[in-house]
Amino acid sequence: MLKFVSLLLALSFCQGLQHNNIDDYVEAEPVFEASKYGSLWPLPQKVQISEVSFKLTSSSFRIVDAKASSAGPSCSLLQSAYRRYYEYMFGSAKKQWWSKNNRRSDPSDLSELQVWITSPDSECDGYPSVTSDESCEYLPFLVHVMFYGLETFSQLVFEDEYGAKSINATIINDFPRFQHRGILLDSSRHFLPIKVILANLETMAMNKFNVFHWHIVDDQSFPYLSRTFPQLSEQGAYHPYTHVYTPADVKMVIEFARLRGIRVIPEFDTPGHTQSWGKGQKDLLTPCYSGSKPSGSFGPVNPILNTTYDFMAQFFTEISTVFPDGYVHLGGDEVDFTCWKSNPDIQKFMEQQHFGDDYRKLESFYIQKLLDIVTSTKKGYLIWQEVFDNGVKLKPDTVVHVWIGGGSDKEMSNVTAAGYTTILSAPWYLDYISYGQDWQKYYKVEPLNFEGTDEQKKLVIGGEACLWGEYVDATNLTPRLWPRASAVAERLWSAKDVTDIGDAFNRLSLHRCRMVE
Amino acid sequence: MLKFVSLLLALSFCQGLQHNNIDDYVEAEPVFEASKYGSLWPLPQKVQISEVSFKLTSSSFRIVDAKASSAGPSCSLLQSAYRRYYEYMFGSAKKQWWSKNNRRSDPSDLSELQVWITSPDSECDGYPSVTSDESCEYLPFLVHVMFYGLETFSQLVFEDEYGAKSINATIINDFPRFQHRGILLDSSRHFLPIKVILANLETMAMNKFNVFHWHIVDDQSFPYLSRTFPQLSEQGAYHPYTHVYTPADVKMVIEFARLRGIRVIPEFDTPGHTQSWGKGQKDLLTPCYSGSKPSGSFGPVNPILNTTYDFMAQFFTEISTVFPDGYVHLGGDEVDFTCWKSNPDIQKFMEQQHFGDDYRKLESFYIQKLLDIVTSTKKGYLIWQEVFDNGVKLKPDTVVHVWIGGGSDKEMSNVTAAGYTTILSAPWYLDYISYGQDWQKYYKVEPLNFEGTDEQKKLVIGGEACLWGEYVDATNLTPRLWPRASAVAERLWSAKDVTDIGDAFNRLSLHRCRMVE
Repeated sequence: MLKFVSLLLALSFCQGLQHNNIDDYVEAEPVFEASKYGSLWPLPQKVQISEVSFKLTSSSFRIVDAKASSAGPSCSLLQSAYRRYYEYMFGSAKKQWWSKNNRRSDPSDLSELQVWITSPDSECDGYPSVTSDESCEYLPFLVHVMFYGLETFSQLVFEDEYGAKSINATIINDFPRFQHRGILLDSSRHFLPIKVILANLETMAMNKFNVFHWHIVDDQSFPYLSRTFPQLSEQGAYHPYTHVYTPADVKMVIEFARLRGIRVIPEFDTPGHTQSWGKGQKDLLTPCYSGSKPSGSFGPVNPILNTTYDFMAQFFTEISTVFPDGYVHLGGDEVDFTCWKSNPDIQKFMEQQHFGDDYRKLESFYIQKLLDIVTSTKKGYLIWQEVFDNGVKLKPDTVVHVWIGGGSDKEMSNVTAAGYTTILSAPWYLDYISYGQDWQKYYKVEPLNFEGTDEQKKLVIGGEACLWGEYVDATNLTPRLWPRASAVAERLWSAKDVTDIGDAFNRLSLHRCRMVE
Repeated sequence: MLKFVSLLLALSFCQGLQHNNIDDYVEAEPVFEASKYGSLWPLPQKVQISEVSFKLTSSSFRIVDAKASSAGPSCSLLQSAYRRYYEYMFGSAKKQWWSKNNRRSDPSDLSELQVWITSPDSECDGYPSVTSDESCEYLPFLVHVMFYGLETFSQLVFEDEYGAKSINATIINDFPRFQHRGILLDSSRHFLPIKVILANLETMAMNKFNVFHWHIVDDQSFPYLSRTFPQLSEQGAYHPYTHVYTPADVKMVIEFARLRGIRVIPEFDTPGHTQSWGKGQKDLLTPCYSGSKPSGSFGPVNPILNTTYDFMAQFFTEISTVFPDGYVHLGGDEVDFTCWKSNPDIQKFMEQQHFGDDYRKLESFYIQKLLDIVTSTKKGYLIWQEVFDNGVKLKPDTVVHVWIGGGSDKEMSNVTAAGYTTILSAPWYLDYISYGQDWQKYYKVEPLNFEGTDEQKKLVIGGEACLWGEYVDATNLTPRLWPRASAVAERLWSAKDVTDIGDAFNRLSLHRCRMVE
């Protein structure tokens, strides 16, 4: 019998990660054999669960830094993750943890989970991000990977027949198949209270999602409180005090996400989807005409005024400092040309620019200038597929977001053939609901099922499940999103051949219970 | 200016109810004019909202018994309703209510709501029920009607521009179009915690639903804890302690419903849908055969054993005392004959009874005996439509529940032509979900759109919105049921010609906010 069983969660740098070095390794007599995967979700790349089990006693169990780890007690990111996962595993046993601190452990107890960070730079204070090192394409920075190990470890913990927390000795090699695994929430069509967003981030972490795509403003409302242009939310939010995200709110969301290894990518969609912007920013939108007179209604952003670009430059400079992620989503979808067509000043501008009747050229003219502005703030950008379709010149590191259902395979082919990175959302519009287990439909999607070379396939860095807000608010967001989004989580994380619906159902059922808890 | 404005909520007995005697009548200078209906839901039969408004001050406002009322302070049903609606209207102002008890009211204050019960028997301690007086077909007992008046009154209260609670002088004549307005919840496929059921009853009251159809057991689990046969839930519930409804739980649900004028009709569906019954009651279900040997699985209730009927007699005797309502729902839907056909003892019985190959005759044989048993417990019954379709002899007061979509108009014709009372659920299966505002689909249903005489139409006493539990549990019940079920509420309460979707949308949006609150 072992006196102290110690469990190592070892992490090495990225090259290694793709070759078996993320291990949940138990120093015990290894009696491994193939078996079911319990409630693991998403399924790790390689799992061997043995029949040897150990008890975890809340009074003695610790998550500690391994001696050789490059990150230690000074890494608050780690320490808060240890605390969070300890509480997650032992729940209300918290009190015991403090009062019986010095209890000796039983021989069959697992007393420690050692976390071994091998990255030279542990990035404890940094934000999760995409890395530009192509040899390491699967990875956000290292410490953030550790979250996944802790999540997996916690999913292995179960209660034995006497209610004792236990874990089977297990070897796991793991890494995500795709690096961009996102959830889009829409806080414009219905305002989402901060606590709903935080609860969603918590659940995202349980599913190893790593990107929160915050579709923060749209036609319906402008809840983002801008320091530079406070009148945008004063006039454009559903309510100027109760239905806004203050700078403190946004900071809280970003920090809460950071502590869980989740990037926050805000979307400020222009030139369409901007009705709410117009309320607080005079002359930003195009005046529509009825015959020879202004009709009093407004269309997309006015692309022919210098003031528009001055505004955008100031606005996105603010955004670039408020949101630390390297990318911002610039939208660019569904621009309706009716209003532009009605406006005589726009018509004149079209003539001057020799655009003929092709208003897509005008749209591209606007987007091009916007992209240049955003580039000057040192940010990368994501854009919806129309921007690519219209032939706008894009930076090489642009991410094209494919969302139009029907023909999305063809679109993926085109985008990657042009050499652009892409993420997929078309089959994962989770605001569309239907009766029964529609998670299976999301689960069966294979993102690389389009015609293209291996090089093209490598340009698909992931996808996002989208929960648009037409019929979603705080009252129904959680049950509408989960566990349906979990299907997308596994598709983006696990190996391509993890497609057994039956096995997925068995694991997902337990995973769902865990999320409900 | 009036010193004290007093508002009467006058109720007279049923004949009168159909002729303008339920009035929210304001003794003020009547400057009535036609206007919008605010947030009233379901829409009362007749509404006139004037522009004269009064303030309601939480410190001085009272709901009191009118002097001539036949029910007074000893009627706890009334007093608890007063308290509930006071808190509902003034919310967190509760404290003020006690501390500033003696504040004088302003001249324009509305200081009292007088509730005037004119029924000779106020039924303060009784349960809501269907009445057998045909001249009064729209009415449960009188005091219970008072709830609707209070609900309507509370819906008229709004906050003026300074946040002061106000109400416009209003004349309302009201009565429900249909007497049976139900919600079916299914606590077998997923267990529903008591607090979810209570929250649902609260929301039902806000929508003037008056029947909670509790589909309490089914194949999947048997959460009803029977005093006579405790092994049914011990063996048949998802968990014998945490996933059961104890006698105290059931009592609490019934009392909570009674205080809101809601009947609780339990459903114990047999002979099909009974897999969970078999776990705790040996020999109750039919053993299925594979060739000449029992296969180990079981089918519907075994209709050829005397022990079956002894069990049912004892069981339904208990049910008749536990549930005070005059009716119990006996199910009788979807009986699969495969297992009966496989069983040699059943085959022999079929021969003896000269049933030939018609297993519907065997089903009817069982149901007939069951109905006789339940009749002997002095209860009426509801049954699903198959029981009628199979030609079982039914008591004249039987309610036939039409649920099969496609052909439900024809079924309504048949059932009413045969002289039976009926309720409709076929178009209102709310567990089926779809994208967007599908409440409109439920709203547009007209229950009397079938071929038949006026006499036949009168036999349609209402309907039920059904939320089956395959994909519903505590996590998603409320957002899935509301406000979609509100559409059914208005269809069953309001006049036939209340069909304006636009107006309904405007009122329902506000009503939804109230429910969310």
